[in-house]
Amino acid sequence: MADLNESVQLYRAALGAELVHRASSEKDGLEAAFLRVGDGELELMAALRDDSPVGKFLAKRGPGLHHVAYGVTDIVKALADARAAGLELIDAEPRMGMHGARIAFVHPKSLNGVLTEFVET
Amino acid sequence: MADLNESVQLYRAALGAELVHRASSEKDGLEAAFLRVGDGELELMAALRDDSPVGKFLAKRGPGLHHVAYGVTDIVKALADARAAGLELIDAEPRMGMHGARIAFVHPKSLNGVLTEFVET
Repeated sequence: MADLNESVQLYRAALGAELVHRASSEKDGLEAAFLRVGDGELELMAALRDDSPVGKFLAKRGPGLHHVAYGVTDIVKALADARAAGLELIDAEPRMGMHGARIAFVHPKSLNGVLTEFVET
Repeated sequence: MADLNESVQLYRAALGAELVHRASSEKDGLEAAFLRVGDGELELMAALRDDSPVGKFLAKRGPGLHHVAYGVTDIVKALADARAAGLELIDAEPRMGMHGARIAFVHPKSLNGVLTEFVET
């Protein structure tokens, strides 16, 4: 998306969202805002560089839905279950996410084109 | 997506999802499966016809994330708030959704390319 601050304001005004956390990663070329909307959590993302993963996504598909994340209590078990069910993992091992939780992504081709993330809670 | 039954099985095996409800609508050219995944709900959709809204989406973008839905207690108020915040509504008035709840959609261009639905709970 174009401007992260504008988008946060829009989600606050239109959906009553609450800003929980802001973070950015030079390495991933990514700036993110984590919002709470009712019982759900929403991550708004903006690219810091056109050649970052999110920058390339935006160039190819335009702004829109990027991925779905599921909270899991044991990410190593979640990855083992996913692999046993035949899913192709992007991250074979968990890595550290932007807000200090362990995360891992499943390849979208394994789940009907839906990029899927596990977040250890 | 290609086969709704296969996808339901995949979400069961890989994510521990539970099938809650199946429905189809000749009018909308749409077949849907509603799943529960932890605290969240997921709707898997397949097109009954290539010229239905979901059929056209699949032809243009391929399988993937289609929309996000927020549960609201008062959908008329939610639509008024959204309109006041400057969002363009696809449904100015609520209409009946596939599982008997009142629903309404917000135009994706109003929310960074994200097709957004309100569901009255």
